[in-house]
Amino acid sequence: MKADAKRIERDIEEINKFNLTPGSGITRLTFTKEYMGALNYILGELEKIGAEVQIMRGGNIRARFQGLEKNAPSVMIGSHIDSVFQGGMYDGIVGTVTSLEVVRLIYENKIPHKNPIDFVIFVEEDGSRFSTVLLGSRIWAGKVSNEDLSKILDKEGTSYLDAMKKSGLIPKDEGLLEGNKIKAMIEPHIEQSLVLESKGLSIGIVEVIAGIKQLELTIEGVSNHAGATPMNLRNDALCGAAEIILNVERIGSKKGTSVATVGFVEVIPGKTNIIPGKVKMTLDIRDKDDAVLNEIADSIMESIESTCKNRQLKFNIKQVSYTKPVLLSKKIAKTIEDTAKKQGIKTLRMVSGAVHDSSIIAEFTDVGMIFVPSKNGRSHCPEEYTDIKDIEIAANILLDSVIDLSK
Amino acid sequence: MKADAKRIERDIEEINKFNLTPGSGITRLTFTKEYMGALNYILGELEKIGAEVQIMRGGNIRARFQGLEKNAPSVMIGSHIDSVFQGGMYDGIVGTVTSLEVVRLIYENKIPHKNPIDFVIFVEEDGSRFSTVLLGSRIWAGKVSNEDLSKILDKEGTSYLDAMKKSGLIPKDEGLLEGNKIKAMIEPHIEQSLVLESKGLSIGIVEVIAGIKQLELTIEGVSNHAGATPMNLRNDALCGAAEIILNVERIGSKKGTSVATVGFVEVIPGKTNIIPGKVKMTLDIRDKDDAVLNEIADSIMESIESTCKNRQLKFNIKQVSYTKPVLLSKKIAKTIEDTAKKQGIKTLRMVSGAVHDSSIIAEFTDVGMIFVPSKNGRSHCPEEYTDIKDIEIAANILLDSVIDLSK
Repeated sequence: MKADAKRIERDIEEINKFNLTPGSGITRLTFTKEYMGALNYILGELEKIGAEVQIMRGGNIRARFQGLEKNAPSVMIGSHIDSVFQGGMYDGIVGTVTSLEVVRLIYENKIPHKNPIDFVIFVEEDGSRFSTVLLGSRIWAGKVSNEDLSKILDKEGTSYLDAMKKSGLIPKDEGLLEGNKIKAMIEPHIEQSLVLESKGLSIGIVEVIAGIKQLELTIEGVSNHAGATPMNLRNDALCGAAEIILNVERIGSKKGTSVATVGFVEVIPGKTNIIPGKVKMTLDIRDKDDAVLNEIADSIMESIESTCKNRQLKFNIKQVSYTKPVLLSKKIAKTIEDTAKKQGIKTLRMVSGAVHDSSIIAEFTDVGMIFVPSKNGRSHCPEEYTDIKDIEIAANILLDSVIDLSK
Repeated sequence: MKADAKRIERDIEEINKFNLTPGSGITRLTFTKEYMGALNYILGELEKIGAEVQIMRGGNIRARFQGLEKNAPSVMIGSHIDSVFQGGMYDGIVGTVTSLEVVRLIYENKIPHKNPIDFVIFVEEDGSRFSTVLLGSRIWAGKVSNEDLSKILDKEGTSYLDAMKKSGLIPKDEGLLEGNKIKAMIEPHIEQSLVLESKGLSIGIVEVIAGIKQLELTIEGVSNHAGATPMNLRNDALCGAAEIILNVERIGSKKGTSVATVGFVEVIPGKTNIIPGKVKMTLDIRDKDDAVLNEIADSIMESIESTCKNRQLKFNIKQVSYTKPVLLSKKIAKTIEDTAKKQGIKTLRMVSGAVHDSSIIAEFTDVGMIFVPSKNGRSHCPEEYTDIKDIEIAANILLDSVIDLSK
């Protein structure tokens, strides 16, 4: 019994037909027409194999396949189907279609399993519409209240709650996630980096999901005429920002394990002939070790202070988010590794630099992640690509791991 | 016979009542309702003193006061009344109101003058509406054809020609500027820098208007996930841009006389968790000496090439504009200086880092500029401020200089 690569390929194609930006990558924002189109395609496939589909708290989807022991905790598999503006065909989708193929195979081959198997789709993993990553799993986990959902707005000012209602998704089960009702979860996902590709491997097994600190920094200098103001009488906020960007790169590179990125910069007023008076920027710092993460963040803070002091600039720094590193289950990692070995597949234990819904679920139960290579490490862009052969391998490893965990 | 500070203050107030953005600086875009309001106020004042007002090529205004020798070349004074979005009360206006006061005094006191005195208002000096600086004087000088005027568009797509027609300004005299018909020109203006203020002086005399090179630079790296991509596998376009910004600052500071500024930066895609794949930026380089200007620009170009080579980034550089330094008249500078001395006013010979219509007129005849201090060097912003005492001093020096030049 093996995964059917052609069937998986068709799923990927069908799902990606639901796309706001044809020709310019894949855009499938939470609860939009495109999102509901993709979801309905999957629900159609699940119906064919007798799944008990339930709309859970926050609009998350759970398709249950009952096991021999009805009250046994479930084995959960799945991922997400939202896609950032002009993203790619594989982020979220690889985990969705491999999980779908696994429940199909178990159904078609009448594989007996003691534990229920839950195929899940988490809402708004990528912050595609409401700019809040892992939102669906956080709602389900009770980290975001239903009341908050009317305050979380998209760019047009529509609330999560209103958007969900408009999509027709009415939660039937408002229950919170309970650790003792989930035996394990496995989420396959694209790597979004270059490590697997550079080593010529098809499968990575995630040991830890890096912790993240995200900061917002505003630097204030003095805006003045670019022609008339001598260099030595300037307080150029952008020159200060440039120094900080290079310090972030330098400090972020020191340990080898960390990453630190300035991804957004806004220059005010942003005119050719005016010295920038203000710069807004974001910082994103990650490490698999919480102590290192904080050390790096502190060191960056000190360098910002020193740059601004030397250049007589004012600054304001705000911590936007802080997520500690999440250790995934050693047990599940071993299960995946052993399964892969039996199938003759070499694997690599690795760190996930990106967060996933698995980060949230790992607080409740044993979680594992299976990574497949991203071509050139690209993701969240039209160039995102994963070879179907690697997806097929992941599906087969997921299949045997799920059978093992639920038997 | 002295300038009337109260009257000048009233002119400044009246002109600045015509403002698109009350409470947020002064916005008076060329040929708009606000522009025409300010212009009509001035035309009303000119009418009271018997000026022969003519609408010249491109909508520039010339108010002539005939001299004793009708065919003698004129002495020209004036400036502009357009103001950038949310600019200040003094840029252009100081030259306009001091010149208005001078022709008033000459009229009221029946000062005999051999040469005609022309009070002028140049259109679109600040590129306020059509993003093209010195446009009015360049049209008048024949550097821009009337045909081009239908192709120069504002942000809404309205052409200069259509906007001029709609404003009701129909040129009566399509003649080009002729050097032999202008004996001299003097334009008072705010300094837009900190030099006069820092030396406690009221009057600067411009010797040279700096040359400018403006460049547009695009840097291309690889956009990738900020969490998943190790530091050593990145081609971060923003880190390259940061290095370039600091090199521009360093190279621009080397000579002491030059200035070099990055005023605009756009980061693409500009997301917290994505490594910037592309950065667009502008460079503005100025010096009073053409050779030094080119030396600085070349040195910056080399540093860009080297940064991009080291960081494996692609880049594209485009020269947007290049204006050589403009030497103003030594003779007129001497006239202004001697006049100031007689009035007991200390002056400073200086460079104008900003361009002015005087840059264009100086190709045709002897031109001088009188600078007054800008508080904190601020200009093109609501904080723009010049003390009325300094404006009064400038008016008195302009008055006696004009009398001297036209007698």
